[in-house]
Amino acid sequence: MPYNITQKLIKDHLVSGEMVPGTEIGLRIDQTLTQDATGTLVMLELEAMNLERAKTEASAQYVDHNLIQEDSKNPDDHLFLLSATKRFGIYYSRPGNGVSHPVHMQRLAKPGKTLLGSDSHTCANGCMGMLAMGAGGIDVAMAIAGEPFYVKMPQVWGIKLTGTLPDWVSAKDVILELLRRYDVKGGVGKVIEYYGPGLHSLSAMDRHVIANMGAELGATGTVFPSDKEIRRFLKEQGREDDWIELVADPGATYDLNEEINLSELEPLIAKPSSPGNVVPVTEVAGTPIYQSYIGSSANPGFRDFAIAAEIVKGQRIAEGISFDINPTSRQMLTDLVKESHIASLLQSGARLHQAGCNGCIGMGQAPATGRNSLRTTPRNFPGRSGTREDSVFLCSPETAAASALTGQITDPRTLKMEYPKLKEPKEPTIDMNLLDAPLPLEEAKKVELHKGPNIASIPDMDNMPDNIEVPILLKMGDNISTDEILAGGARVLPYRSNLPEISKFTFEIVDEKYYERAKEIAEKGGHAIVGGFNYGQGSSREHAALAPRYLGLRIALVKDFARIHWQNLVNFGVLPLTFIEESDYDKLEKGDVLIGEGLRNKIKQGKEFSLSVKGKNIDIKVKHALSDRQIEIMLKGGIINWVKARNISVN
Amino acid sequence: MPYNITQKLIKDHLVSGEMVPGTEIGLRIDQTLTQDATGTLVMLELEAMNLERAKTEASAQYVDHNLIQEDSKNPDDHLFLLSATKRFGIYYSRPGNGVSHPVHMQRLAKPGKTLLGSDSHTCANGCMGMLAMGAGGIDVAMAIAGEPFYVKMPQVWGIKLTGTLPDWVSAKDVILELLRRYDVKGGVGKVIEYYGPGLHSLSAMDRHVIANMGAELGATGTVFPSDKEIRRFLKEQGREDDWIELVADPGATYDLNEEINLSELEPLIAKPSSPGNVVPVTEVAGTPIYQSYIGSSANPGFRDFAIAAEIVKGQRIAEGISFDINPTSRQMLTDLVKESHIASLLQSGARLHQAGCNGCIGMGQAPATGRNSLRTTPRNFPGRSGTREDSVFLCSPETAAASALTGQITDPRTLKMEYPKLKEPKEPTIDMNLLDAPLPLEEAKKVELHKGPNIASIPDMDNMPDNIEVPILLKMGDNISTDEILAGGARVLPYRSNLPEISKFTFEIVDEKYYERAKEIAEKGGHAIVGGFNYGQGSSREHAALAPRYLGLRIALVKDFARIHWQNLVNFGVLPLTFIEESDYDKLEKGDVLIGEGLRNKIKQGKEFSLSVKGKNIDIKVKHALSDRQIEIMLKGGIINWVKARNISVN
Repeated sequence: MPYNITQKLIKDHLVSGEMVPGTEIGLRIDQTLTQDATGTLVMLELEAMNLERAKTEASAQYVDHNLIQEDSKNPDDHLFLLSATKRFGIYYSRPGNGVSHPVHMQRLAKPGKTLLGSDSHTCANGCMGMLAMGAGGIDVAMAIAGEPFYVKMPQVWGIKLTGTLPDWVSAKDVILELLRRYDVKGGVGKVIEYYGPGLHSLSAMDRHVIANMGAELGATGTVFPSDKEIRRFLKEQGREDDWIELVADPGATYDLNEEINLSELEPLIAKPSSPGNVVPVTEVAGTPIYQSYIGSSANPGFRDFAIAAEIVKGQRIAEGISFDINPTSRQMLTDLVKESHIASLLQSGARLHQAGCNGCIGMGQAPATGRNSLRTTPRNFPGRSGTREDSVFLCSPETAAASALTGQITDPRTLKMEYPKLKEPKEPTIDMNLLDAPLPLEEAKKVELHKGPNIASIPDMDNMPDNIEVPILLKMGDNISTDEILAGGARVLPYRSNLPEISKFTFEIVDEKYYERAKEIAEKGGHAIVGGFNYGQGSSREHAALAPRYLGLRIALVKDFARIHWQNLVNFGVLPLTFIEESDYDKLEKGDVLIGEGLRNKIKQGKEFSLSVKGKNIDIKVKHALSDRQIEIMLKGGIINWVKARNISVN
Repeated sequence: MPYNITQKLIKDHLVSGEMVPGTEIGLRIDQTLTQDATGTLVMLELEAMNLERAKTEASAQYVDHNLIQEDSKNPDDHLFLLSATKRFGIYYSRPGNGVSHPVHMQRLAKPGKTLLGSDSHTCANGCMGMLAMGAGGIDVAMAIAGEPFYVKMPQVWGIKLTGTLPDWVSAKDVILELLRRYDVKGGVGKVIEYYGPGLHSLSAMDRHVIANMGAELGATGTVFPSDKEIRRFLKEQGREDDWIELVADPGATYDLNEEINLSELEPLIAKPSSPGNVVPVTEVAGTPIYQSYIGSSANPGFRDFAIAAEIVKGQRIAEGISFDINPTSRQMLTDLVKESHIASLLQSGARLHQAGCNGCIGMGQAPATGRNSLRTTPRNFPGRSGTREDSVFLCSPETAAASALTGQITDPRTLKMEYPKLKEPKEPTIDMNLLDAPLPLEEAKKVELHKGPNIASIPDMDNMPDNIEVPILLKMGDNISTDEILAGGARVLPYRSNLPEISKFTFEIVDEKYYERAKEIAEKGGHAIVGGFNYGQGSSREHAALAPRYLGLRIALVKDFARIHWQNLVNFGVLPLTFIEESDYDKLEKGDVLIGEGLRNKIKQGKEFSLSVKGKNIDIKVKHALSDRQIEIMLKGGIINWVKARNISVN
């Protein structure tokens, strides 16, 4: 049977399940990627698991998000990550080296491999003929520890590319075209696979642009073939040996099909405030702007900056415009410096920032109130720029540079100039020191984790007891979100590496006294909470399960769960139960004490059982939805203990 | 009578007073400089004064401090400053153009002129044969409005330089040597004037380094001659016509004398946490570091970055070191790019930041907890880096670069290499667009000030009433500081451009209810406060006078005042009175109502008079220390009204 590339990658890494779209499969993970905003917790999880050494072929930790050091918290985190990577045998990318996705592509990406990353744009490395997927931190920690990644088998969506991009139109316009056609949920449950004659005119970095924003379509991943262009790219990076050819078998088919004729594309732009809100640039041309912003993992290539430099060369940007240049890697910045493009940008009036994510994730470069910002970044969700009620447009570097010159949104085809012909760097820089390589095992074992005052280990957690007697500390209604369970934002997130500290914010929006009340009885058996429908909706943040667990939450009994939070509760050893009779919800009150006897056997023997209520003559019928693997995890008190138990036998 | 340079500059600009050290003189101000942290209030003051147009020869507004845009407040301020400079005929330096002092030197500084700036390092431009002084915002606003600057006639301290700097020793070591000898108060009440044969080996930018840190000696200013080197510098900047020779007359003398033999200097370093805590580098060599930081107005020159680049070229900085490069101007960064120095720095592992003040004033680049930071910046006061209990050392670029390579404090003379011979740029960049020039008057008049939601005009304030009947809202003890009157810090300072908002924090440390109580009666005649000795000590921030005035403070009656706060009270129309009989302090209570009748005549007619206390049969004898000019200001209700009244007649 002829396979497409996605199917080949999955087949080669399948450790459980069947390749039937919609059913759960387990995949072997070859490489992992973590960034600093999610990586500190991953490293603390590895420590809690007693991991001896990363079991992947290559795992890398990038410091690209929290580069602003207004106080000691971020630099303390950097030093912690450095020590943790040394301890666990992980590559370390220093602050200033650049954004994880392009740096990983330059130094570690290999065709034919799987990559799991705790960053939603991990899919960018699908440009290298990899199956590259974003996931939660604990999933990546598990992969580093050698465990499979469990995901629903995706449909494969074949996108045939034909034609050639016209002048002034570039890769960003290709992915904006797909977003124009299918909007931000068009890729859910799918891997997007590109093929066809149009590929020949797209460089590896152009493909990175397209693969990266697969995340904005909601796709599980994006896959490009590993062809001659990928060989050329790897050769340029001094890694030709890492190349293998990976293309679809003749006659391979796709679950779904689409076609884009590159020759017919024009400059496109996503209007505020969704990446799916795409129109031709001509439709909004003339709109005044405050900012033009070039960079991020959605336009990381040498050509993306060089084309902007050639467009503004010898000219001056319009008055009052903030023209922000965010280089994506140290290596690329070095080439841009050597080839005089940085000088052209500076002389036009650009602000040159350090290599990293920066404004793309709201770390600086926020626009002024009520002013329009044009960005080559992947997302324009409301407020992501740092400014409330912001107005961010997404476009190509060509459109951004043209608009910087005029001070208003400008179709670059209307500039009075020839489309610049770019030269690749004569001697491209290969910075082999871009990543600090893992230490040999014997040296690594001696490394102590460096923990500043804001970094605390994840405390040990006990197994699930057989008999539980726990008071209901909260009774909540429907649609409780993870923001109500544990808020995000600048007040809370700096404590991302400190569970005891961040747990103080748990449920504070629901009940200010929850923390104190839960903490008081955490060692005396813990507590339960009761909720309504859609419990745990919203952000996937795993702290929203880990923090209540740390405060003694044993049972979450609700009408039904939002999917990701349910998974997180399982991972951290909180028993997620739903009512069999919804009317039982009304029988329970805050303060009631739930009693479960012989629970360890009960959850193994069936999906349904009963809890009693102390002092009330009632039984509450409940059910769980755990798989056999998840029952094992639950009995161990969570996934960290589960892995720890297995490592003890294998280490 | 032969004059030294300082005396010549003062004589040429004297509008009142005698040149007798310690007595007040008034000086005509030719140029002003404001930065964004202090400039927004200056612009609001100009607006409140109804100023038609800046009356100086050149005034420039730089955006260099608040470059991190985590939300809309900073970019809103930038747009406000842009509009205000257009309205008032002021040069505007965009964010990313660089630090005020070197940019001003490159584009506007002129030998023989006076420069007043709302930044304490304004003295840096003394390197150009100018009398350049730092001052409070309202003083600079007054200078922009054409008023003289009043200051005590300084002593002139002649420093004779002999010899030539040895290899590996540079200008920073010269000023550190003076700090080693005289510590941080050694320059108080003095202008430091350099002369002698040692000058020949110091470039204009080297002199900038030395002049800049005159502020750390507490000096009123630093003055260098305008000689051939300054002519060369101005020619290189395309401004040779701005050069005049300015040297001391033969036989000129100084009030104080000192000599430094440059040949005998060695690499020096200021240990935590004072710029005066200077020792030879050899004494602390081997101390491990976390950070090496190059840039700021204290080492702004092309050579300061180029020497660091030559030192690290082809090598790799030590593991875990944050090697931060903060370019000081766009023009210099362009040259450093063109001459390959930026490429050398990047390849060694440096983090390249945008041109501006950045970490020097705690805007990013904070060191990790408990780790040592080596900086070429001018100050290492505790916590200034952003990290509590930080450990910051001040040194030359040579010492910083050598230490980045080894990971510990390193005497650069111990490196196994020749001292690099630097080449100046073949074709130095002259970015004439670095400053946006003022608009012609007719266009300027049409400009509306652009105010984002965080920017509020300074409300109109009334004249001083003749009869005052005001309750005492606070009775305080001795040594109340301006931090207790109006706190600084990240919670309060973002409201620097919004008097109604920042006033909410007034006296909150003394009495949480003060704001409400004062606000309630602000329109009903206002209130008074009573204090002990040394009232208003500490920071010079003018909000500490302006905010209480806005809330209706009419009389501050205390045992005695700290000098600067007293001046600020006068400037903003609060009558500062002291007890003639200190024992009267004990007779007054919070809530007592002070009555002053015919006050306008009383303060004109004598220094001493009486206030009565409502319902108590006592008189309180008080005095004031206002000059005739200050009495005029007081009667008008503050300096803004005073200027406004004068402008109405002259505009």
